[in-house]
Amino acid sequence: MGNMIIGQSGGPTAVINSSLAGAIKAAKVGGIEHIYGMRYGIEGFLQGQVVDLGEYFSDLYDLSLLKRTPSAFLGSCRYKLPSRDKDEETYKKIFELLEKYDIDKFLYIGGNDSMDTIQQLSDYAAEHGRSERFIGIPKTIDNDLPFTDHTPGFGSAAKFIATSMKEMIQDNESFGATDPRIAVVEIMGRNAGWLTGATVLSKDSDCGGPDLIYLPELPFDEDAFIERVEKITREKKSVVVAVSEGLRLADGTLVCNYGIDAAHTDAFGHQQLSGASRMLSNALSFRLGYKSRAIEFSLLQRCATHMASRTDVDEAYNVGYIAVSKILEGETGQMVTIQVDSREPYVAHYELHDVHGIANVEKKVPLEWITPDGAYVTKEFIDYVKPLVIGSINPYYAAGLPKHLKIHKKD
Amino acid sequence: MGNMIIGQSGGPTAVINSSLAGAIKAAKVGGIEHIYGMRYGIEGFLQGQVVDLGEYFSDLYDLSLLKRTPSAFLGSCRYKLPSRDKDEETYKKIFELLEKYDIDKFLYIGGNDSMDTIQQLSDYAAEHGRSERFIGIPKTIDNDLPFTDHTPGFGSAAKFIATSMKEMIQDNESFGATDPRIAVVEIMGRNAGWLTGATVLSKDSDCGGPDLIYLPELPFDEDAFIERVEKITREKKSVVVAVSEGLRLADGTLVCNYGIDAAHTDAFGHQQLSGASRMLSNALSFRLGYKSRAIEFSLLQRCATHMASRTDVDEAYNVGYIAVSKILEGETGQMVTIQVDSREPYVAHYELHDVHGIANVEKKVPLEWITPDGAYVTKEFIDYVKPLVIGSINPYYAAGLPKHLKIHKKD
Repeated sequence: MGNMIIGQSGGPTAVINSSLAGAIKAAKVGGIEHIYGMRYGIEGFLQGQVVDLGEYFSDLYDLSLLKRTPSAFLGSCRYKLPSRDKDEETYKKIFELLEKYDIDKFLYIGGNDSMDTIQQLSDYAAEHGRSERFIGIPKTIDNDLPFTDHTPGFGSAAKFIATSMKEMIQDNESFGATDPRIAVVEIMGRNAGWLTGATVLSKDSDCGGPDLIYLPELPFDEDAFIERVEKITREKKSVVVAVSEGLRLADGTLVCNYGIDAAHTDAFGHQQLSGASRMLSNALSFRLGYKSRAIEFSLLQRCATHMASRTDVDEAYNVGYIAVSKILEGETGQMVTIQVDSREPYVAHYELHDVHGIANVEKKVPLEWITPDGAYVTKEFIDYVKPLVIGSINPYYAAGLPKHLKIHKKD
Repeated sequence: MGNMIIGQSGGPTAVINSSLAGAIKAAKVGGIEHIYGMRYGIEGFLQGQVVDLGEYFSDLYDLSLLKRTPSAFLGSCRYKLPSRDKDEETYKKIFELLEKYDIDKFLYIGGNDSMDTIQQLSDYAAEHGRSERFIGIPKTIDNDLPFTDHTPGFGSAAKFIATSMKEMIQDNESFGATDPRIAVVEIMGRNAGWLTGATVLSKDSDCGGPDLIYLPELPFDEDAFIERVEKITREKKSVVVAVSEGLRLADGTLVCNYGIDAAHTDAFGHQQLSGASRMLSNALSFRLGYKSRAIEFSLLQRCATHMASRTDVDEAYNVGYIAVSKILEGETGQMVTIQVDSREPYVAHYELHDVHGIANVEKKVPLEWITPDGAYVTKEFIDYVKPLVIGSINPYYAAGLPKHLKIHKKD
């Protein structure tokens, strides 16, 4: 039996290492001799950066600690494979490396862009009659992959964001001042509003939740926004607004592009989005004369493993485990998906879906899950997200701080 | 025996309600009939906003939940009493209200400015031969109160910040890119660098910690900063810098004042500080051409009760409890202090200190605890802060999120 290699790609999450842990466990159970890891995804692999994971996980404690380690243990990349007809050399090189390590099982943990890598490699293998197999393991806090109910990483980010929102709303309400105190809180998710919508979970008997929620699925109307905030301040002094980083005006302009910072794009041509909250907070200050604070969750929301959702950790582990089981059964060109049979009580199972149709596609929030005024989410949205944040996993502490597993530096 | 009233003042913290819980418990043990709370501190009290806390805490579960509730349960204020010779009316009104509720014990949880309230009121009582007594309970994430080893609220903020720093450093290191990835992380603390220095705790066998730490105790040199970052990028690609919100240039200009946001001041004349990280991040981008991300902990760091330090929660509870014990013994015009007998093992006891000399004074980080290059903290600083983040207190969860105690709305 050939060996296996696994890589991590794209933005890190709180639970991307749980998927790695599940895959390693399944590989050990399946009797795979060498379990290799790519450092820095396919980009590092192309440079020959390969580690033998066997030496890292000789006991179960290490796998448990791996599940409690944020970000990509193996390192990540944002690297898009060239198209097969334009640059066959890259593909030849990859398959040469696979041969060198006697690898016939290739697993890749990532989002839309990473599934493109699985698609390209499995198509190339098919076109050239090769026996290597390729399976994708879903991962993204943005929750924007199609054909899976949700993606590992989303639930934990949602749990941390909703928890911090509750805490910040308590903070913002603590002053009984006569002047309004406004906070505009910016949340990641690119063109999908899943994470921003999840702030609604902070609404409970002990917290009013955000007053307004703006998702990127609908064009943003600044005048209506200002008017709504003004109206709320006539009833209460603390106003907290949740906005997606990817908000756009009706003409397609990104709200954050009103900013002074230069725009950057990554290897996939995605622009770095940041600054919508600052723009809107300034607009409130200028147009209403109220004090307004812009708050960005920024990198804090991607890797808050200290507040991970148990449901999310377990599902991340399971998709990793099942990916290896399925590749051992001979599957290729597929991604593992999560299918939810029931949300209350919560029951889910796992399937495979052809990676064609997943790669490079963004699943957005259904428009009917946004309220007619465009400034909140509906009960359907709440019912959807609620089970995904259930349960906690305690960090292992040393000297008062969560302990993480660190890959050895070979150099 | 007269009744007691307690209030909360200034910026909220993760454990200000633990002090309230300790005070309520001590008042019950001491047999005080009515335990009143001021809504929104002395400002709300002057408007007659008083609640009877007896009805809220009839069982121990509520006190346990109060300890797990962030921000000020009673509401807070930033209100400075006028000087006694200029506006005696305000003082007369306060003492009339105390008489109305038959209150002779007045406790106030807060920082430098709030201790000014205790000082003014106890001085007024002494000057007018009155029997009401006034005790201060220390509280501030800034850790800038003198005569106490540290302040409740600091340890929990430090624990959350250091935990998130570890997670963000893991995130920032995950890409093996050839271009440097720089993050400039801004931390609260006004003119004191205690919280910013505490980011050093993220440095451990599993994390390199921040590469540079800039405290407001020393003038900030932008050229030296750029040069240092540039030097680090020649050795490693991930660079994370911790900076205080209150950094100033040699001429006294606040670094954040390079920003475009309008400057605000609060009732004490303090400027709202925010934006140093953005300024420095832009400076790095412009001068070095590297991608740099500005990250502000903003309100997240003040009320992260979900990551509270057990040591901090217990000490906050204890200073509240002891304040009531001491006021019952007849003390007035004092603040409870924490005195540390040994840091390893950690042993502390509590004392009282005359509130004169505490009010309006800022305790800063000793200059000898900052490294000679001005860009890190020394072992003395680390030894000082280490015991304060030890231990955890689990939130009570409902539907996957921490549950908080909410004061009833009377209107």
